Amino acid sequence: MTKLSPLAPARFPDLPPLAGVDLSAFAAGIRYRNRSDLMLMHFPDGAAAAGVFTRSRTASAPVLWCREALRRSAGRARAVLVNAGNANAFTGRSGEESVARVRARCAADLGCPETEVYLASTGTIGEDLPDGRITDAMRSVIDDLGGGKWADAAAAIMTTDTFPKGATRTADIDGATVTLNGIAKGSGMIAPDMATMLAYVATDADIPPAVLQALIEETAEHSFNRITVDSDTSTSDTLMMFATGRAGNPPPSSVDDPRLSDFRAKAHDLMLDLAHQVVRDGEGATKFVEIRLSGAEDDRAAKVVALAIANSPLVKTAIAGQDANWGRIVMAVGKAGETADRDRLRIAIGGIPVAADGRAVPGYDEAPVAAHMTGRDILIEVDLGVGTGRAVVWTCDLTHDYIRINADYRT
Amino acid sequence: MTKLSPLAPARFPDLPPLAGVDLSAFAAGIRYRNRSDLMLMHFPDGAAAAGVFTRSRTASAPVLWCREALRRSAGRARAVLVNAGNANAFTGRSGEESVARVRARCAADLGCPETEVYLASTGTIGEDLPDGRITDAMRSVIDDLGGGKWADAAAAIMTTDTFPKGATRTADIDGATVTLNGIAKGSGMIAPDMATMLAYVATDADIPPAVLQALIEETAEHSFNRITVDSDTSTSDTLMMFATGRAGNPPPSSVDDPRLSDFRAKAHDLMLDLAHQVVRDGEGATKFVEIRLSGAEDDRAAKVVALAIANSPLVKTAIAGQDANWGRIVMAVGKAGETADRDRLRIAIGGIPVAADGRAVPGYDEAPVAAHMTGRDILIEVDLGVGTGRAVVWTCDLTHDYIRINADYRT
Repeated sequence: MTKLSPLAPARFPDLPPLAGVDLSAFAAGIRYRNRSDLMLMHFPDGAAAAGVFTRSRTASAPVLWCREALRRSAGRARAVLVNAGNANAFTGRSGEESVARVRARCAADLGCPETEVYLASTGTIGEDLPDGRITDAMRSVIDDLGGGKWADAAAAIMTTDTFPKGATRTADIDGATVTLNGIAKGSGMIAPDMATMLAYVATDADIPPAVLQALIEETAEHSFNRITVDSDTSTSDTLMMFATGRAGNPPPSSVDDPRLSDFRAKAHDLMLDLAHQVVRDGEGATKFVEIRLSGAEDDRAAKVVALAIANSPLVKTAIAGQDANWGRIVMAVGKAGETADRDRLRIAIGGIPVAADGRAVPGYDEAPVAAHMTGRDILIEVDLGVGTGRAVVWTCDLTHDYIRINADYRT
Repeated sequence: MTKLSPLAPARFPDLPPLAGVDLSAFAAGIRYRNRSDLMLMHFPDGAAAAGVFTRSRTASAPVLWCREALRRSAGRARAVLVNAGNANAFTGRSGEESVARVRARCAADLGCPETEVYLASTGTIGEDLPDGRITDAMRSVIDDLGGGKWADAAAAIMTTDTFPKGATRTADIDGATVTLNGIAKGSGMIAPDMATMLAYVATDADIPPAVLQALIEETAEHSFNRITVDSDTSTSDTLMMFATGRAGNPPPSSVDDPRLSDFRAKAHDLMLDLAHQVVRDGEGATKFVEIRLSGAEDDRAAKVVALAIANSPLVKTAIAGQDANWGRIVMAVGKAGETADRDRLRIAIGGIPVAADGRAVPGYDEAPVAAHMTGRDILIEVDLGVGTGRAVVWTCDLTHDYIRINADYRT
C-alpha cells in the first residue's frame, strides 16, 4: 500500500557500531502487525544526555517526562525506549501512568535509575497506550540488544515514513577520532518549532552534558528547525543526543572550545542530513525544495519570510504542478509581514533570475526555468534587497498523495 | 471543466436595484474568452466611500491607488472599475502606469475627478495588464450601465470562483428603510489579513465617509477577517463600501449613533453572508467548517487558536476524509502558542463532546460523531478552559481538488 517516496535515498547508510551503545528492535504488536514497533537504545556504562523538545502547549506525556528526567539526572542517560503506532499524547492522567509503568519496568530490568530512562511514543494521538505490550516485551527487547542494529532501530520507530532515516559522520577532537551516528523518523506533522520529529544522535566522544546541551540547541536551530512539510507541529517532537565518552578524547570545556570545532561542524552536517531525509520523506513529496532568502532586515526576518514561502499551500502546489509561478512567491513574501520592498525584490529559480525591480526580468524566458521545475531538487532564491539578513529552509511540494495519506490515515 | 462547488447556494439572490448605483459588465477579452471580465459600478450623483485592503507588503498597484484615492478625495466615490483575468500585481512601474491610464480614461469618460475612481484587478500575478483592452472597452461599458445588473457584476469579477456571490439586506435608520447590496469574489488565496478578496457593498443610506470607514473596519474584523481557505493572503484584497445617501435618512454622527444600530447589525450580517459564500466556494471545498473557540485567555488568543485549527493541513485533510480525528485538533491547539492546559481542554464535534480533562470522554462513542462528519456543515467547538476569550472562524476542508486546481492553474 505505502509506496516509497520518489525522493528516498538509494539505501540506508552503513552506520558503524559505536562504543558504549547497544540497540534492539522488537515487534510488540502495539498497533502494527508484522513489523517492529519498539526500539531500545542502551548505554551500558551510561552517557551524557541532552535534548530539545516540541514547543507545543499540549506536549505529550513522554516529552514532559524527558524534560524532567534530563533535569533530575543532571544530563545522564542509560536508555532510550521508543514505541511507534500510538503516540500517548492527549491521554490525560492515564498517559502519565503509562509513562510511569514503562520507565519503572525498563529501569528495573536494566538496573538503572528511572531518571536515566528516556521515552517517546509516536503514532495516533488521543488513544490510551497499551503499555502492557511494552512491559511484557521488555525482557525480550533487552535480550536482543546488540551493537550494530542501527538500521533495525531506525525501522522500528517509523510511522507514515516510507524509508528509515540514518546518518553517520566521523570527527576529530584534539587528535582523537570520534564517530556520530543518528537515526530519525518523521514525514508529516513537520514544522520548525524545536525538534519537529523524533531523532536520536549518539557519539562515542566524551562531551559533558552542559556542552552537549548547548551543541544540540545550536545545531537544531539550523537543521531541524529549518525544515517544514506542512506547518503542523507534533505534540511529541524530540531530538536527543548522547555521548558515551568511550573514544577517550579530552572533554571540551565549552561549546566554543576550539578543540570541538570539527565535531560541531560534523554534528551540524549529520543533523542537516537527517533533517533533509525527513523532508525527502515528506508525506506525498515529489520535490525537495531549498529556499535561500537573503537581503532581509536581519536573520530572524529572513527565516520568517523563508518559512512563509515554504509553508504557502499555493507555492507548494505550484511546485507540485512543475509551474514556475513566481507570482505566488511574491504573494508569500508579502504576507510574511516583514519589511519588503516590491521594487527591490529579486527572485531566481534554479539559479535563473525571473523577477527583479518589482516585475519579471526583461526578456524573461520561462523555458529553462520550466525545465528546472521538472527536476526533483528545486532551488528558489529570494533577495529582499532591504538588508543583510539570511536564512535557508527546506520543504517539499504539496501533492495529491499528501491528501490521500492524511484523509485516510486512521481508516 | 470547472465544476460547481458542492457547497454552492441554490441560486444567486435577488438583489434589488439601489438608488444611485448603476452597474455594467463587459467581455473585454483580458484573459478569458466567452465571458465578462470587466465590471463598472457607477454612482451618478457620487457616494461616500470607505475601504479596507490587504496588509500584504507586496500590495498590488490598484490597492496602492485605492488607498491614495480615498485619502485625496476625503472618502468620495463616483466609480469602481474591476477587471478579472490579470491581477496587475508585481508589475513594477508598468503596473502603476496601467493604473494611471485606466483611471484617467474612466474619469474622463464619466466626467469626474480621477481620485473618485477606484480600481481592482484580479487574476494571475506578475504579468503586465493589457490595459488597452480596458480603455478600449470603456465607452461600451458606460453605455451599458443599468440599475439592476448585480448578478452580471458579480459574475464579471470571478476568477477560480465556481459561483457568483451576492447578498442583500434592508435596515431601518431612524424610520427610513435603507437597502444594502453586496457582491464578492474569491475562492483561493484566502486568509484573514484584512479584506482577503474583492467585495463591494453599496447602500442607498446616507452615511458620512468617516462613519462608513469605522463601520467597515469593525464589520470586516468579524466577517472577512475570520475566514480562511488556505492561509495565503492575496496582494489585491479589497473590501469597499459605498453610501449614495438617496434613502434620505438623517446621517448618523458616529458609528455608535443609536440610530445606526439596526444598520450596523444588517451590514455585519450581509458581510458574514458574503464571507461564508467565499468559504463555501473555497477551492476544492466539500465541507463548510465552523470553529467556535471559547475559554481562551482573551479574544485575541481565541482568534489565534481558532485560526491555527482552521489553517492546519492535518485538521483540514481529516475533515476531507470525514474522520473525527480530534487528536489533530489538540495538536493545532498546542502549536498555536497561546496559553492552553491539556487537562482543561474540551472538544465537541457536531455538538457531541469527544474530549475533556485531557483525554477522550469516558465511554466515547464515535458513531454519532462519524455521522456528523459525513455532512456538509461541520461544527467544531473547543473550550480551552483557561479564560473567557471567544472567537468564531470559518474554513473549509483540504481536498484533492484544491491540489488539482492549484497545481494546474496556469496550464
